Amino acid sequence: MAGTDTSIKIELLPAPAVILCEPQLGENIGAAARAMANFGLWDLRLVRPRDGWPNERAVAAASRADHVIERVRVFETLEAAIADCHLVLATTARSRDMQKEVIGPDEAAERMAARIAAGQGVALLFGRERWGLLNEEVAMADTIVTLPVEPAFASLNIAQAVLILAYEWRRHGGRDGEQLPFGSGLSEVAPRSELVGLFEHLEGVLDQTGFFTTPDKRPSMVNNLRTALTRGNFSSQEIRTLRGVISSIDRRHLRPNPNRAPKTETDE
Amino acid sequence: MAGTDTSIKIELLPAPAVILCEPQLGENIGAAARAMANFGLWDLRLVRPRDGWPNERAVAAASRADHVIERVRVFETLEAAIADCHLVLATTARSRDMQKEVIGPDEAAERMAARIAAGQGVALLFGRERWGLLNEEVAMADTIVTLPVEPAFASLNIAQAVLILAYEWRRHGGRDGEQLPFGSGLSEVAPRSELVGLFEHLEGVLDQTGFFTTPDKRPSMVNNLRTALTRGNFSSQEIRTLRGVISSIDRRHLRPNPNRAPKTETDE
Repeated sequence: MAGTDTSIKIELLPAPAVILCEPQLGENIGAAARAMANFGLWDLRLVRPRDGWPNERAVAAASRADHVIERVRVFETLEAAIADCHLVLATTARSRDMQKEVIGPDEAAERMAARIAAGQGVALLFGRERWGLLNEEVAMADTIVTLPVEPAFASLNIAQAVLILAYEWRRHGGRDGEQLPFGSGLSEVAPRSELVGLFEHLEGVLDQTGFFTTPDKRPSMVNNLRTALTRGNFSSQEIRTLRGVISSIDRRHLRPNPNRAPKTETDE
Repeated sequence: MAGTDTSIKIELLPAPAVILCEPQLGENIGAAARAMANFGLWDLRLVRPRDGWPNERAVAAASRADHVIERVRVFETLEAAIADCHLVLATTARSRDMQKEVIGPDEAAERMAARIAAGQGVALLFGRERWGLLNEEVAMADTIVTLPVEPAFASLNIAQAVLILAYEWRRHGGRDGEQLPFGSGLSEVAPRSELVGLFEHLEGVLDQTGFFTTPDKRPSMVNNLRTALTRGNFSSQEIRTLRGVISSIDRRHLRPNPNRAPKTETDE
């Protein structure tokens, strides 16, 4: 889905940090950075990345999320990475048999939003590709976050897990909550007088064409047509178009047509 | 995040179809299949995949989402792919300047859940990697879905967009999601094949009547008409009635009419 508006400057608003513990593949670091950027996160911290830092593959996979990549910080220990944080959430797909609360992304985002709003630091921990977080890392967290995945197919890569959490952050805590990048294209619904004009135009033509088989059926047939057409919430422009459609078809019988145009309709 | 419990059998519960329009890279098809599987979706349909089907790269990227890959269906046209659907949602990152409502993933999931609960078919459309959906594809949808992305960094790949929608589906409509009450009027919406039949019938007649003033204007005029008529959520009965209306007016020029019936329409 293309659609980046490059004329808009990226603002770095207070937001949770994403901490990747011993990530192995640069591609995943980059994809996580991109997912963060999509939903307004920018503080990416790495604990002992296997291939060191900077990492060219990460830069390539980040698809120009430069404002995230340039700010990456590398730490030797998880303790150092979370030193300035007040709330630490550990993401995991496995039950850990630990005395820790488990919440979903929705609830996690609400809590993160409350802490960020209060000026506190928040961290979201993600584990290594193969094993996730170690139990001693989970132990450092306040709470476990898990995703409502299908238990029979629960394997998500890191960037996908980051994406879901970043999306929920945006919904709950981002700049304006769930702010869509553009609004509905629905222009004003036409005043009802114009809709009635359409009805009367159509019904007048149908009276001429013999559509209403018997006079006593006409009222219910008219009601059904009006009911269907009212649901469209047509704009003034659309009503003009539909009246043009009716006129265009209806005028055909007024034109000279010596050889009877071929019948093209497909019904019946 | 590893954590798949392979002892659990995957159940295919009623769920929305994911339709990828002209996907280019097998990797993206596979990653989309995996994202679907994570959150309980399984009905993947491809419209004219660039590299054909089956596609080895897709299988590799799907990370054993075999139950999705094995059920992939390929279609020549979008119309055929959505023929059995009653609600069609088009995902796009760009504003389309169309008379269509725009909603977020949360609202989209609520609506999908209501329709699925009522036994209807639902489709989520995703566009090609570089350009997204064409306007004529968006015109076939009831509603536009867009993600609450950072406008300055809005580029998501297809699998990520599928992941967010699948996640929201799971939250709202999946097995453990909240089942929403269903409005009675919706149960009557015709399958999309019938709506397409109405479009093609009307457009065929309008081709005969000279409604489309120039060939280059035809596509946008068709899109506007389809957009307006899609919003009506017509039932099968209503579509039959509207096709009867078109035929009734159109047949008039085929009847002998020596004295030219009086012009009754009120426009112009």
